[in-house]
Amino acid sequence: MSTKRLKIVFLGAGNVATHLSKALQKAGHPILQIYSRTEKSAKELAMQLNVPYTFNLSDLNEEADLYVISISDKAIEPLLAQKDFGTKLVIHTSGSISMGVFKGHASNYGVFYPLQTFSKFKEIDFKKVPVCIEANTRENEEILLAVARELSDNVQLVSSQQREIIHVAAVFACNFSNQMYAIADKLLKEHGLPFNILLPLINETAEKIKITSPVEAQTGPAARGDQNVIDNHLKLLTNFPEFQKIYSFVTESIQSLQETRNK
Amino acid sequence: MSTKRLKIVFLGAGNVATHLSKALQKAGHPILQIYSRTEKSAKELAMQLNVPYTFNLSDLNEEADLYVISISDKAIEPLLAQKDFGTKLVIHTSGSISMGVFKGHASNYGVFYPLQTFSKFKEIDFKKVPVCIEANTRENEEILLAVARELSDNVQLVSSQQREIIHVAAVFACNFSNQMYAIADKLLKEHGLPFNILLPLINETAEKIKITSPVEAQTGPAARGDQNVIDNHLKLLTNFPEFQKIYSFVTESIQSLQETRNK
Repeated sequence: MSTKRLKIVFLGAGNVATHLSKALQKAGHPILQIYSRTEKSAKELAMQLNVPYTFNLSDLNEEADLYVISISDKAIEPLLAQKDFGTKLVIHTSGSISMGVFKGHASNYGVFYPLQTFSKFKEIDFKKVPVCIEANTRENEEILLAVARELSDNVQLVSSQQREIIHVAAVFACNFSNQMYAIADKLLKEHGLPFNILLPLINETAEKIKITSPVEAQTGPAARGDQNVIDNHLKLLTNFPEFQKIYSFVTESIQSLQETRNK
Repeated sequence: MSTKRLKIVFLGAGNVATHLSKALQKAGHPILQIYSRTEKSAKELAMQLNVPYTFNLSDLNEEADLYVISISDKAIEPLLAQKDFGTKLVIHTSGSISMGVFKGHASNYGVFYPLQTFSKFKEIDFKKVPVCIEANTRENEEILLAVARELSDNVQLVSSQQREIIHVAAVFACNFSNQMYAIADKLLKEHGLPFNILLPLINETAEKIKITSPVEAQTGPAARGDQNVIDNHLKLLTNFPEFQKIYSFVTESIQSLQETRNK
């Protein structure tokens, strides 16, 4: 499928902006300019793409077909308060900000939310990244769907309400499961043991749920109701009251979801 | 490497017993018998291995070289109270039970702890499963190390104290991260959204920590300090006070580990 080449300006130079601008450039869309409040970040990404940059919002290139706002959620409203996009198509890439944020600041707008955890240090196969699209008109929807389908094999229309649910679910599935790894790492380090002994286990845990539901896949002392083990683990965590609290609540939560399962 | 063929009796027929007995049989060790308190479980595993079974502890085959106790942690002591193993080599496969549990019930004993989450519905490549070995004599240690190395490329000597730390870390990294998937699943289902939209994200989260530490890999509103998003997520979870509590504590925990990182 081939779509029109869109001239694009990126507002933002963080993890998402970096991966998305590279993918769009690779797909043949000219990136006209990178804007970031922080000169260093703007310059860094602009150099990778070999395009101009600015850290001054009033120097924004006005010739683009598409403006992509990819900055931290809390910075989106303040940026829109400073900059009117007129009839230009403008989108953001946030999981949790409603499309309504654009009202009064643009007449053509939408959302392009790539559901993935991006880090600058690691390449991503964009083909496999689910992209959630929303737009204020059917025409804008078609433009965004076409661009998204060039990058990804998994493109879906998702409303603002659905997107915020997906985002909070993603925080549990990604950020919070990663924090469970971080706690494990901390406990092992504290006792001079290597984190990498857990890698096959972590891998298998993430694999299992491709073929069954997480509730069905659950194992371990909480699911088995092995109270002796649970008590012993809580004792082992005495020096980490914060981890102890998490241990207790997550154990309770496992047991309550297992009960639902057995009903 | 080839070791002596050991005649083996399995006590237990759960997830670990199933995977371990199959792997040992495949490696050439004759499984003489399966014992389980529950006839159905004993029969099921025995049929898969094509070996005899019993659900009566007094009918245990006395001819084995090695007795493998692979039952729930809380059932190990009661079983040992009923059965003396004399000079036979007996081991358990538990992460959290000290090797000392065998004292007074056997003179040759040890632990063979495969650090993995086993489910009956999914095959495992045992070669990649880290196996933690402990034994009461150097000779028994050599026997168990040799058997373990036949099954796995990752065999380590681990004391009871180290093993219980590894086990609690494994509960966080596996059971608790899986519970984060389960909560995500529940939230999505509640709104008619499919869990599989999260699979690429879950996969990438588990991949990232192969090349960097979990603290370094962390992304999302907690790590960014995006309080608006956090507040909005807590509001979205109003109908799930239990998930709300977990959200708050894990968010705090992420922020406290990120602070350590930035120091």
